[in-house]
Amino acid sequence: MTQSAQRPVRPASLSKANQVHIVLPKDVNASYHLFGGRLMEWIDIVAAVAAKRHCHTEVLTAAVDHLSFLAPANLGDTVELVGRVTYVGNTSMEVCVETWVEYFGKEHDAHLVNRAFLTMVALDENGRPTQVPMLELQTEQEKKDFEDGKMRRANRKRMNME
Amino acid sequence: MTQSAQRPVRPASLSKANQVHIVLPKDVNASYHLFGGRLMEWIDIVAAVAAKRHCHTEVLTAAVDHLSFLAPANLGDTVELVGRVTYVGNTSMEVCVETWVEYFGKEHDAHLVNRAFLTMVALDENGRPTQVPMLELQTEQEKKDFEDGKMRRANRKRMNME
Amino acid sequence: MTQSAQRPVRPASLSKANQVHIVLPKDVNASYHLFGGRLMEWIDIVAAVAAKRHCHTEVLTAAVDHLSFLAPANLGDTVELVGRVTYVGNTSMEVCVETWVEYFGKEHDAHLVNRAFLTMVALDENGRPTQVPMLELQTEQEKKDFEDGKMRRANRKRMNME
Amino acid sequence: MTQSAQRPVRPASLSKANQVHIVLPKDVNASYHLFGGRLMEWIDIVAAVAAKRHCHTEVLTAAVDHLSFLAPANLGDTVELVGRVTYVGNTSMEVCVETWVEYFGKEHDAHLVNRAFLTMVALDENGRPTQVPMLELQTEQEKKDFEDGKMRRANRKRMNME
Amino acid sequence: MTQSAQRPVRPASLSKANQVHIVLPKDVNASYHLFGGRLMEWIDIVAAVAAKRHCHTEVLTAAVDHLSFLAPANLGDTVELVGRVTYVGNTSMEVCVETWVEYFGKEHDAHLVNRAFLTMVALDENGRPTQVPMLELQTEQEKKDFEDGKMRRANRKRMNME
Amino acid sequence: MTQSAQRPVRPASLSKANQVHIVLPKDVNASYHLFGGRLMEWIDIVAAVAAKRHCHTEVLTAAVDHLSFLAPANLGDTVELVGRVTYVGNTSMEVCVETWVEYFGKEHDAHLVNRAFLTMVALDENGRPTQVPMLELQTEQEKKDFEDGKMRRANRKRMNME
Repeated sequence: MTQSAQRPVRPASLSKANQVHIVLPKDVNASYHLFGGRLMEWIDIVAAVAAKRHCHTEVLTAAVDHLSFLAPANLGDTVELVGRVTYVGNTSMEVCVETWVEYFGKEHDAHLVNRAFLTMVALDENGRPTQVPMLELQTEQEKKDFEDGKMRRANRKRMNME
Repeated sequence: MTQSAQRPVRPASLSKANQVHIVLPKDVNASYHLFGGRLMEWIDIVAAVAAKRHCHTEVLTAAVDHLSFLAPANLGDTVELVGRVTYVGNTSMEVCVETWVEYFGKEHDAHLVNRAFLTMVALDENGRPTQVPMLELQTEQEKKDFEDGKMRRANRKRMNME
Repeated sequence: MTQSAQRPVRPASLSKANQVHIVLPKDVNASYHLFGGRLMEWIDIVAAVAAKRHCHTEVLTAAVDHLSFLAPANLGDTVELVGRVTYVGNTSMEVCVETWVEYFGKEHDAHLVNRAFLTMVALDENGRPTQVPMLELQTEQEKKDFEDGKMRRANRKRMNME
Repeated sequence: MTQSAQRPVRPASLSKANQVHIVLPKDVNASYHLFGGRLMEWIDIVAAVAAKRHCHTEVLTAAVDHLSFLAPANLGDTVELVGRVTYVGNTSMEVCVETWVEYFGKEHDAHLVNRAFLTMVALDENGRPTQVPMLELQTEQEKKDFEDGKMRRANRKRMNME
Repeated sequence: MTQSAQRPVRPASLSKANQVHIVLPKDVNASYHLFGGRLMEWIDIVAAVAAKRHCHTEVLTAAVDHLSFLAPANLGDTVELVGRVTYVGNTSMEVCVETWVEYFGKEHDAHLVNRAFLTMVALDENGRPTQVPMLELQTEQEKKDFEDGKMRRANRKRMNME
Repeated sequence: MTQSAQRPVRPASLSKANQVHIVLPKDVNASYHLFGGRLMEWIDIVAAVAAKRHCHTEVLTAAVDHLSFLAPANLGDTVELVGRVTYVGNTSMEVCVETWVEYFGKEHDAHLVNRAFLTMVALDENGRPTQVPMLELQTEQEKKDFEDGKMRRANRKRMNME
């Protein structure tokens, strides 16, 4: 995988995608917690938007890394998902989607309940994988995310997961 | 309606709420355009999140101003709704929700397809209207939005719409 | 906009469209009231049916006038929406949709909770606006609705909303 | 089952319930016909509204008679369901729900695609069956429907279906 | 209807289709029972899978026999639908779908709440009815189901229901 | 984590849960493939049923291991998910959910498109983790799954994922 000078470059920050929700009865399980399947549905959409903002093509979800549900969200809670491209390969991108629950008090206080890494593939008009732009890394966080993403990818390859 | 010094004040920017979508077959009408009812459903959720971020209570949609659908969104399009509190009364808030469709090309290019103003009421634990914090206006745009909101509210009252 | 003699004429009463619902958990917000977005979704469908019954073509929602939610509907309530074409222009129609909640007691007792006016455009096979039939007004109420519709339209034009 | 003079009587016509739809992509199967399960969902809601309009209590679907799908409805079609109470027992009601597809041409032309008979039971506050009002039959059609309903019920009992 | 030797034969057991659910708030009515319309939606899907597993073509629901809801399922219950082809004609199949609710205790204990018989038609690429394979009956139960299915079909024909 | 003799034991085979679907327009993305978020929603339900069949209590999804989407499912395809408990800890269970797409031809031919491992926690009436029964392993496959599950769990702990 080469990242030649001619390949377009797009800033990581342009891929950022946010999605707010209020947890409604249609989103909860019989214990009135947001059910895991609904959250995974939302994560998948946010990842697709972040990926499309980077590559400007159709995309496809190839894989989702290990997901931990750190705390539940409850009926009526405000939830926000935040996705961004953290690493790019040749035709695939890693997207990180974080899910936050907001507790309202004197200070705005949001609680991380899930962090997911998805591997998304860019597709051309015929549905075949196509090269994605390189990622311009502008902040220290973006550089660290990219290095971590490179390691996660090596780990996936080592474990035959990609 | 008095806005006393003791009343809490919260910056307008804290209420901002974004919601991305990809228009899926479940969201379109028989002509494969995003159907108006689905967009209105999304607008209502985004307005509620923006209002809750300002007042930290339950909220209720009291009214929606005139809505024009300026252009359609189509199957597969990326859509983003952006809501923010633009004006506050004593127990009610005006929330503006703009809907953008993204066209992907060399430059990121988003197109405004809808701008809605909703009147949201803050509710206490017993479901009765309760006072909302004042709005701290930090930018020229926020100040202009607030003045326009004051006029829209006077207009609604004059036309018996509130 | 001319309404020539050759233009087909169709009675206003033929456009009437009714839609009953029972408010289920999938339709309510975290306070167990029918949520505004769901009601707006239903209103849009009813308006489209009324418009199609008048013009016999595909239609598109161009605008929704100011909406006030006068009272909530609750989980388990019976709700009925009633739509009818109240005014026609050249290629557009105004549809009024009223939403009623039914309270059951000795007498059938229905309560108006919302009245919406939507502007719907008739589309030909190529998706372009096409002329709609004239409206035959048979009752005093239909004549009054048409005159009021004419004024609402003039008002929308004056305020650059159409 | 006695129908004493003191038992309340309510005209059959008051139970009538209509529900219009436009068949959207979310309602069709992979052949773009309205899928049978969605139509059955709509039939159940319309029957419940008709039954509640007659008995003014909670109701429960006990049975659905043989259903034939006479013709398909397609993506974009306007569909209308019409329900009405046709027969009452002591604590149960028979509701007939007819489903029509509208074909638009010079003349309004609606096509019957399904006729269903549902047995609904009235429930008191404790969820136990409770007596329903008698049915006042005003037209020849209503009288015929009632006699036919009596036969359908006898037939169900004979076949151990009720 | 001939069942010639050349006609393919497929074992009844290959058509078996199971579908588990947990009853979520989005599936219940205002009394928190699984609502009849949702169960009918699930039954229709299971019947279509069983039919497709037998005939390997597109299928269409032509009719549903009398349905009795013997007992309710409640929020949080585990429900399992089990479908299988019980009888075949020339171009149509009878599918039986049973719905069970599970009560958890020392012993696994499942309760039959519904048994439905659906008539499904096999369709060729042009949407026209096409011959289905014969049914190989391997167990006593399958032979009894087939004989009963033959009688149910004769009964439907006699009552003009097919 | 001790597995004392008094702890109840339940055969692994009793937890098996199957769920068939036909991929409908409401389940696909703009390319008419089953969208990843919908499949994840289905996986979560199947895992919960398998877990509840083993522990007979409420359960909660704590984590989902790496998911690879090996091949797409398309509009109209028959899909079957198969879940079973593969490993138990003290209060948690590992559930494996496999997703198969069926291609119909001379031979029944199903294609594995996804294999997911979920960690589910058993909850008592107060929503606190509670001990689950031990797993009785009857086949060679079940014994291998359990040993593999033990290794996956050790791996998760080592990587701080549990």
